[in-house]
Formats: sequence, C-alpha cells, structure tokens
Amino acid sequence: MRLLDIITKKRDGKTLDASEINALVQAYTMNNLPDYQMAAWLMAVYLNGMIYQETAALTLAMAESGDKMDLSSVPGIKVDKHSTGGVADTTTLVLGPLVAAAGIPVAKMSGRGLGFTGGTIDKLEAIPGFKIALTQANFIENIKKHGMALTSQNSMIAPADGKMYALRDVTATVESIPLIASSIMSKKIAAGADKILLDVKVGSGAFMKDIKSAVELASTMVEIGRLVERDTIAILTNMDEPLGDAIGNSLEVQEAIDVLKGGGPGNLRHVCLVLGSYMLKLAGHTESLDEGYQILRDLLENGSALEKFKEFIIAQGGNPAIVENNNLLPQAKYKITVKSNIDGYIEKIDAAKIGYVAMILGAGREFKEQEIDLAAGMVLKCRVGDKIECGQQLAIIHANDQDKISVAIKIIQEALTFCSQQIQPTKLILGIVDKNGYKSF
Amino acid sequence: MRLLDIITKKRDGKTLDASEINALVQAYTMNNLPDYQMAAWLMAVYLNGMIYQETAALTLAMAESGDKMDLSSVPGIKVDKHSTGGVADTTTLVLGPLVAAAGIPVAKMSGRGLGFTGGTIDKLEAIPGFKIALTQANFIENIKKHGMALTSQNSMIAPADGKMYALRDVTATVESIPLIASSIMSKKIAAGADKILLDVKVGSGAFMKDIKSAVELASTMVEIGRLVERDTIAILTNMDEPLGDAIGNSLEVQEAIDVLKGGGPGNLRHVCLVLGSYMLKLAGHTESLDEGYQILRDLLENGSALEKFKEFIIAQGGNPAIVENNNLLPQAKYKITVKSNIDGYIEKIDAAKIGYVAMILGAGREFKEQEIDLAAGMVLKCRVGDKIECGQQLAIIHANDQDKISVAIKIIQEALTFCSQQIQPTKLILGIVDKNGYKSF
Repeated sequence: MRLLDIITKKRDGKTLDASEINALVQAYTMNNLPDYQMAAWLMAVYLNGMIYQETAALTLAMAESGDKMDLSSVPGIKVDKHSTGGVADTTTLVLGPLVAAAGIPVAKMSGRGLGFTGGTIDKLEAIPGFKIALTQANFIENIKKHGMALTSQNSMIAPADGKMYALRDVTATVESIPLIASSIMSKKIAAGADKILLDVKVGSGAFMKDIKSAVELASTMVEIGRLVERDTIAILTNMDEPLGDAIGNSLEVQEAIDVLKGGGPGNLRHVCLVLGSYMLKLAGHTESLDEGYQILRDLLENGSALEKFKEFIIAQGGNPAIVENNNLLPQAKYKITVKSNIDGYIEKIDAAKIGYVAMILGAGREFKEQEIDLAAGMVLKCRVGDKIECGQQLAIIHANDQDKISVAIKIIQEALTFCSQQIQPTKLILGIVDKNGYKSF
Repeated sequence: MRLLDIITKKRDGKTLDASEINALVQAYTMNNLPDYQMAAWLMAVYLNGMIYQETAALTLAMAESGDKMDLSSVPGIKVDKHSTGGVADTTTLVLGPLVAAAGIPVAKMSGRGLGFTGGTIDKLEAIPGFKIALTQANFIENIKKHGMALTSQNSMIAPADGKMYALRDVTATVESIPLIASSIMSKKIAAGADKILLDVKVGSGAFMKDIKSAVELASTMVEIGRLVERDTIAILTNMDEPLGDAIGNSLEVQEAIDVLKGGGPGNLRHVCLVLGSYMLKLAGHTESLDEGYQILRDLLENGSALEKFKEFIIAQGGNPAIVENNNLLPQAKYKITVKSNIDGYIEKIDAAKIGYVAMILGAGREFKEQEIDLAAGMVLKCRVGDKIECGQQLAIIHANDQDKISVAIKIIQEALTFCSQQIQPTKLILGIVDKNGYKSF
C-alpha cells in the first residue's frame, strides 16, 4: 500500500490497521514522508478521529521510533505519573521524593514547559548546581542507590512524537484527543513505565476545559494502556482555580519544600496524597487507598520525604541547603503586594488568567527556545471561599522586569471575582477513569 | 489574522471571508505559506467543504495570482469552452474552427493531458510544424486576423492553481468539488473569458461518475460564474461510452477533420453542434439554439469550418496538407484489427476501460512529464446498439510497442458487453445547469 493510500483511507473515515500506521510513522521519522503529507493525514485524523485500536497503534509506533529506557534492572514496579498540565501544579516535585520515601522506585523523565510556567525540568534548574541531564547508566544507578532519579527527555525518546508535535503546532491539529493521548502515552512507554497514573486537569487553567472532554481524553489514554498492556488510571482534578499558591519556577520549588515539610497549601497537599496513594496501590505496595494515604501523610510529617528530596538533590549535584534557606534559590528584584480594594468573599480565581500573569512576568514560555526567568512569578494569598477585607493582601508579584508589573496587577484583579456571601469551596478531586470506566466523586 | 487562524477556522467548519482566502492564496503563491500548512487547509476544505461565496473567492484569488490575458482589444464577446475530460472527446478541435467560422472570436488556452489521452495541446502537436506556444502579442494578433488562436497555458497563468493542484495530487485532496470547480474557473478567468460554456462529462470514462456529483460540480461552477460576473452555463453530456470513435492524439486530429468535412461519428458531431449553439447564444450571436445549430451545421457542410481549420493551422506554422492527407500525421507501426468472436448487439462500451487501453498503448500519461506516443491509440468500429456478427471488426489498435498489443486486445474485449436483443442507444445530452438551476433533458 502506498503512503498516499493511507492518507486517503483516513480521509474517507476508514479504520487504519497497525501496519499502515507503523508504515506512516516510520516513513515520517526517517524523513521519507514529507511534512505536507503528514499534515494532510493529521488534519484527516483531527476531523475524522481514530478508534482506540488505531490510537494504541499510533502510540506504540511513536514509542518504538527511537531509543527506549530499559528499566528492567531496577527491581519493583515502575509507576510513572503524568499531569496534563495546569497552574501552580507542583505535584511532581512533591510526589517524586514522597513516593520514593515509601520505597517505590521513581524513574522520571520530564520535559521543558510551554505556556504558563516551566516544566519540571525548568523548575529543578532553579536549584543551584542541579544537573537535569543524566546518562542512562547514571539514571539507573541513581534509582537503585537513592530510589529516585529525574532526567530531561532527550530527543531520541519517541522522536516521531517530537516531530509530529512540532508539525501539529503549526497546522492547527493540536487539540485532537487521539493525537494528544498517543503523544502522552508514547513518551511514558518509551521512558520504561510499567504502570501509568494520569492526572487529567479540568477547568479554565487546563487544556481540557470541561469534564466531558477530560473524560474522553482520560478514557482514551486508559484504553491505550489496556491495549498496550500498561495498567493506566486517570484521576480528574480541578483546574478552575490554581492548585497551589505559588506560580513560577523558583517559587514552586519553595512551595514543594513547604509541602514536604508537612505544611504548604492544603489543596496541593491533598492532591499529592491522593495521587500518591494511587501510585502505591498501582505498584502493589498497598491494598487500599486509605492505607497509602496514611503512609504518605506520615512520611510528610516525620520528615522522611524531605530527607529523600535532599538525598535526590545531592545525587544530582544540587545544593541541599535550599531546603533550609529559600534565599539560595533565585530571587526576584521586585516583590509587589496586590491588595484588595473591597470587602467580600472570593468567588472565583481564574486559573487561566493567573497563569497568563506568570507567563508575561517571564515564568513561562510563549514560544519554544525562549529564555525563562526562574525567579519571576507570583504567590496567591487568598483561596476561593476566603473572606477578604479591603486592604488585605491578595497576591505577591515577583518580578525582575519593572515594566510588566502594572499589567500583571491589572490581570490579577480581573482574575479574582468577589461575592457578598460565603460560598462552598470548589471540589478538588472530580473523578476517576480506570478499566471500569468513569466514576464521578 | 494569522494564517494559522485561517486554517483553524476552516478546520472548525466556519466560513472564511474573501480577505482571509486572499491572504492564504497570496502567501502560498509567494512561498510565504509552507506546503504543510496549505496541505492541512486543503484537507480541512476537503472534509468540511466551502460555500459558493468561499469557492468564488478562492477562484478569484487564484485567477489574480499571476498574469492575466487581456483580450479587451479583441472585439466581441469571448466565450471559452471547457470540458471536464473524457474518452474520445475531440470537441475542442472541432468547435474552435467551427465557432470561429461563425464569426465568434476563439481565444483558447489549453493544457497538456494527464490520463487517458493527451490534452488539446498534445493533440495539436501531432500536426507537423504546429507551434503550440504563442506570445501574448501573437496570440491576440492571430485572433484579430484569423478569428482564432490557441496557445499552451504558461505557468504564469493562475500559478497559485498550478502549485495547489500539484500539492492536492500528493495529499489526497484532488476529489473535492469546491477545489475542482475553483481550479477550472480560475484558469478560464485568468485566460480572459467573458463567458464560459462548460461540458461536464458524466459516466465511467469521466471524473464525475454519476449525475448527482456532476450536477453538484456544474452548479458550483455556474454559481462561481454568477458571483464573479462571468455568465456560465454547464451542459452535462454522457461519458459512459466514448464520445467519438478515435482515441489517441493523431487519431483524434484525423477524426476532428472528418467532422469538419461534414462527416465523422454522429455522437461527436451532435455534441459539437449542441455545445456550439450554446456558445453562439452566449456570444449574443443568435437568439435561439435551433438557429445556432443550423448555422453551424451549414458551416460544416459547406466547407467553411474546414477552411477555418486550415487557416488556423497555417497561422500557427503547421502543415495544412494534413487535412487532405492523413498520412502526414504520425502513423503507428502496427495496426491490429480486433474482431468479434460472437454474434449479438453491443450493450455497453466501457469508456474507462477504452481510455485505459489508449493510455497503456502510450497515447496518455500515467504521470507528469511522461513522453506520449502521438500515433498510438485505437479506433472503435462499433457503437452501443450496433448488431455485430461473429468475425466483424470491433476496433483497430494503433501501436508502436508490440508488447502492449495482447493486453490491449484483452481489455478491449472486457470493455465490450454484448446482449442478444436490440437496445436503445444511450442518451447523449443529459441536462443543463444555468442560472435557473439544473434541468434534465
């Protein structure tokens, strides 16, 4: 079959078999399929969709397109956690050492961010001396020795996905559930995950704006996991309001340390404990979620998780003193307090707008290869449901570029909605998608 | 608006305005829009369609993308005829001199063919000495002096269409009614047509296999014509059976001469007279179709059309003696008669299969830039409805490549279906689409 016939078949709404999808992905990876043909195919997929079997075949084809991390020498079940991305989402920085402290091997490959703030790799670069790129040998050695390692995703992991993502970005084919799902899952599989826990964010600050599309994305990824024999569970969590209080790379590292010390914002802490308890169960470490939740809460409170974080920083060349002294992390030149000019209750904190503020302050990238400002960002001083008095502080802006401050203040004020009566805080954990389907909480 | 937003808008099924379509086509023509973005847009158009206003805007944008033929110095209404292509369709070679003999200026720009046989330009190259490329000045001078000129379409006429067609060919986006319609109409408009007569072929040997899709294509082109203020009429004609008897470049020139001499196959002659009578009416030369039909029939019978053909050949450097002596046209080495091995009536002559035979004998191109064999092809010796006796000749194959003959015979035999009872001949002129919509005949 000619490659053009494969494009025609998808154009006509027919189902492609695995060999056809493989042929297309292999040809594209080897530069034997021109961008314009892949672009036509991607638009046909966007408009005609793919069934789960096709999406799973695409996932495997992309996972097999380059190097794969071989974690077979690391004992135990390797559970990878992935978040679809949100505002003040510091869960990876907390969950890594927390779960490792519980004895679960953590082998994490992360990327840089595009959008509101940096990715986990960007955040860790805020730690002086921290090395984000490990050789495969060092990576595996560190997991064996310290129970945890984290490295940047190199271009040889699922290169087909990298090439296709770049093309989707410029051909209006990003927002396709089968393409998003296969992109995420291919990288997890190439990175060597045995089981996968997905944190699918839902709301204004997330890629999926409503529960329906989030369930569709989650179901697709769980089905891919079943078809490629990697147990996958997706937890749907709220992203209408920022998850933590800190948005910005250095600021989020500080907030992760607060949580690892047993404190930090309650929402962030709770989501970390819930996701962690699913990871423990997936790893076969615990029977029940409650048991895992208690184990992890104890590890936060008795300092074990924090110790694991320090051990991890030392193993990758970073300065562990940042844990005791925040000032060793990059600090912004200007810290401006935004205060309320009215009395009332916080009804809404628009996560998308708050994320946008962080990005224009320099914490995130508008386009690839852009330099980010590790110190820039903001810290929220209020949550939905809080009673606020006129003059009370709402947020603190951390900026190095003075020119951005006034527009940041303006957007923060727009992001906050007040009401006159006390309201219920928003629900945090919305539901789960596993092999039994979707269940709302 | 960014070009990517225009792709997104069509992807989402929204209607583009003329300025958006212009921006896209201009950028593509100037190489400021990469092929992969145009490919994504074309697939979105293929799957989501375009309304008439969008298709008309695309037509104008492509027509304006390069040079335009300025025929304003030629007196009279310039009516251009275009056939969507079929097997043994020699109408252009007949209609040009026939209509010119009636006093209508014929300014024809033609292309090379891809498929069953060559295009009009290929066919004319069979005439020794004939120059197919004229300068604009010579072209206009010849029309003024001889009432007729024909030149090959150069790459500066609607270059956006040329570039987009090449991309459609390799991205599975050819068979889209708005894209086909705008491609045809843009070239006619750039070539300077005041009014346009379309011969939309319907049947196995045509691009449009059924009346429904033919009416859709015809209606789209007639609507484009209305929106861009070029009166357009489409006649739907049968292409289940080859139109004439000759298929092949040199052979079709011989057959056109037969018609111009007042003879030739009845079907070809009738279609030429019908199309010509519409051209005379569009040009304001006659009040009624019957009047035009009679004028043109007289011009065939009194030799005026043949004289005009000779004048046209001489004006473009060709040898007019071919009109009297067929042997001056390229002749094939082998002439093989295919005979019937049964008695019966011809029920069907599959035009697609007959066209395919001509192509494999070398009369047409399977891919661009392919050399064609001007002498190769075949002449049918039977029509649907004919009573045939065993041993009677069915066709004569004209071949230079001996190796192709046996497969040609096999396919000709497959193309012919016999039955035991006399049947009605097929309907030739199926209907019309004009400003009043579709009317079946």
